[in-house]
Amino acid sequence: MPIALLTDFGLRDAYVGVMKGVIAGIAGDVPVIDISHAIPPQDIRCGALMLWQACRYFPTGTVFCAVVDPGVGSERLPLAVEAGPYRFVGPDNGLLSYTLAQFPSVRAVGIQSALGDPSALSSTFHGRDLFAPVAAMLSIGTPLDELGETVRAIKALPWPLTAADDGQAMTGEIMQIDHFGNALTSIGVLSWQQADQLRLDTPLSRRTWYIPADANISVGQLSLTKVRHSYSETTIGKPLALVSSSGLLEISINQGNAAREFDLQVGMPVVVTYDSR
Amino acid sequence: MPIALLTDFGLRDAYVGVMKGVIAGIAGDVPVIDISHAIPPQDIRCGALMLWQACRYFPTGTVFCAVVDPGVGSERLPLAVEAGPYRFVGPDNGLLSYTLAQFPSVRAVGIQSALGDPSALSSTFHGRDLFAPVAAMLSIGTPLDELGETVRAIKALPWPLTAADDGQAMTGEIMQIDHFGNALTSIGVLSWQQADQLRLDTPLSRRTWYIPADANISVGQLSLTKVRHSYSETTIGKPLALVSSSGLLEISINQGNAAREFDLQVGMPVVVTYDSR
Amino acid sequence: MPIALLTDFGLRDAYVGVMKGVIAGIAGDVPVIDISHAIPPQDIRCGALMLWQACRYFPTGTVFCAVVDPGVGSERLPLAVEAGPYRFVGPDNGLLSYTLAQFPSVRAVGIQSALGDPSALSSTFHGRDLFAPVAAMLSIGTPLDELGETVRAIKALPWPLTAADDGQAMTGEIMQIDHFGNALTSIGVLSWQQADQLRLDTPLSRRTWYIPADANISVGQLSLTKVRHSYSETTIGKPLALVSSSGLLEISINQGNAAREFDLQVGMPVVVTYDSR
Repeated sequence: MPIALLTDFGLRDAYVGVMKGVIAGIAGDVPVIDISHAIPPQDIRCGALMLWQACRYFPTGTVFCAVVDPGVGSERLPLAVEAGPYRFVGPDNGLLSYTLAQFPSVRAVGIQSALGDPSALSSTFHGRDLFAPVAAMLSIGTPLDELGETVRAIKALPWPLTAADDGQAMTGEIMQIDHFGNALTSIGVLSWQQADQLRLDTPLSRRTWYIPADANISVGQLSLTKVRHSYSETTIGKPLALVSSSGLLEISINQGNAAREFDLQVGMPVVVTYDSR
Repeated sequence: MPIALLTDFGLRDAYVGVMKGVIAGIAGDVPVIDISHAIPPQDIRCGALMLWQACRYFPTGTVFCAVVDPGVGSERLPLAVEAGPYRFVGPDNGLLSYTLAQFPSVRAVGIQSALGDPSALSSTFHGRDLFAPVAAMLSIGTPLDELGETVRAIKALPWPLTAADDGQAMTGEIMQIDHFGNALTSIGVLSWQQADQLRLDTPLSRRTWYIPADANISVGQLSLTKVRHSYSETTIGKPLALVSSSGLLEISINQGNAAREFDLQVGMPVVVTYDSR
Repeated sequence: MPIALLTDFGLRDAYVGVMKGVIAGIAGDVPVIDISHAIPPQDIRCGALMLWQACRYFPTGTVFCAVVDPGVGSERLPLAVEAGPYRFVGPDNGLLSYTLAQFPSVRAVGIQSALGDPSALSSTFHGRDLFAPVAAMLSIGTPLDELGETVRAIKALPWPLTAADDGQAMTGEIMQIDHFGNALTSIGVLSWQQADQLRLDTPLSRRTWYIPADANISVGQLSLTKVRHSYSETTIGKPLALVSSSGLLEISINQGNAAREFDLQVGMPVVVTYDSR
């Protein structure tokens, strides 16, 4: 089963290649798949969102090695986690939290001593010295319990979404601008409430939002009515709101670049209003 | 045998990684090779050219999964194709046509129902939901006939090249600027005439152009004589015309960036004149 | 054992994918790992440094295929090399030299005729036509001696580092700016003296520099005292000098971009002073 990598290391330097070299030395036959290495430097939420988007499309047994780690060398805990059919390796800074929240049962261990004395690690590149080798060990069958002590709670990122009391509006924000200039919002089929600590020993309380097809969507100068399902439901060059391939509300232009055209940026508020249903 | 991917998805988002995750779930032992994911968004001709450049260097049995698909979710047909020693998966919008024109015999099927009810697919990401899984199925031996009904004609892109009546000149255009600033033209050893529909049941009528070594090449403000075979046939910093590694006429600067220096852009006309031969 | 690729080809064009296609046709089961394809065009020293940084993290038996080759098509020799537990393929222009200098024993052969008549190769893309197939052949067991005649000396790049006569200062330079804006210098644990020719039949004479922890570091407008081991040893946003993950002195900002903030560029001198030890 593959190891899937997600980092903010970029592809210009040798960092990702070196992680793959380390993996090849431990688990030479395991395929390694890049999810992305273009997370903006230190942008934990962007990494958390992309891991959540990608995870469900990987086969049972995949080990995800996720490294967006501004606190490398500090006290933040490095983790190995089992959840659903998957294993995860990464820092305890919220990076794994959107993904783990989907699973009813999660087991996590701290891996700071998984390879021996933690003071023998470099203090700047745990991707190479800790996360990659532990991911490789998991992929060839090392049990989670051999890697460290159980952790009871891991850090969770809030999901930026609030509902009005009357149940006729919600406010989210733009979470991601993709390569095509599509703006992905936090409003969608699956989301959950803000939480500082994701309790691992209780199933996550979760709210599922369904947007009615005749909702009004407002972001920046742009007002849109109706949620579509395909870019081609408008004429070429026209903006639309649609259900993205990851299930979240997306703002797009058919065959155009919505972010550039309407100056959409990550963090801008998105308001959806609708009649009571 | 490998699956080779060519898309306009970029490497910033998780799109390509997700396609690989889907492939790993169906054909876990099949290596996946990236040709490029940097086709400009929706630029079908650029994708068609690059697939043509790359294809011949892959081993017998390779499955090419090519997705530059501005019409995703519309009526354009998704295809699986057998041609020569290769299989192809992609939209019927011309993306495969430069490559398929090289093969005397081509078989194509429409794969819109290959995975069951087409209305169950997402309308925005057929790379993930249709093309990747069908490529994986082909790579592990699923016969073309099980994927859909035969298609009699597929869409072809014109190749931008015209010859003067006197046989002493031809006009092409710049098709591609590469990473080094080399400008690749449509003038070369292998090309063919404009056609709206590439008939699949008859061999392609094809003209092969040989450029005499003493031709005069004119593009923008630049005039060059002689077609070279190596960058080092001029001094460092000097422009030259040479036969590119893909067999097309290329405009370059030895150890420099010709596109930047001479403001060369995709679509600029290139005129070649020569004495009758 | 894997083949590891390092080039200046970028990921926009099909060049790297084509090399992998060629490798798949010869050594279909051998995993291929990208170190980087973002070496600036024709920047041999940048490539040499990155190969040196990455090499030691790959498993025994890895074949490195390194192509930064401004002299392609000229008289520069193409090489296959055995050194320590590794094999290397690349042009004889210094690209391999920082890495090879680490090994006490190096064997090199010229591979210009490894695939038959050299005049049958393209003159512009030896990555595809020569280096990739030879790397694949090495990876499946072809002995070095079958690829060409022994070469007695290969081209070495100087390492930019000089020490003051009094032993209380040294001057190096910035060698690399990474994706995070960290500036890597030539001053570090492992370096060696300038040499035009790296003799392959004698062990390398090598000097090892240890920087005292209380050294003063000066680069551009920036003066720093102390060499740290972790970004988090300063507060967020503050500059620091630390031992990089490759063992060289690095100039950084904790969770910031030092190169942008202090206008650091490759080639800028870095002066380190310290009391006699």
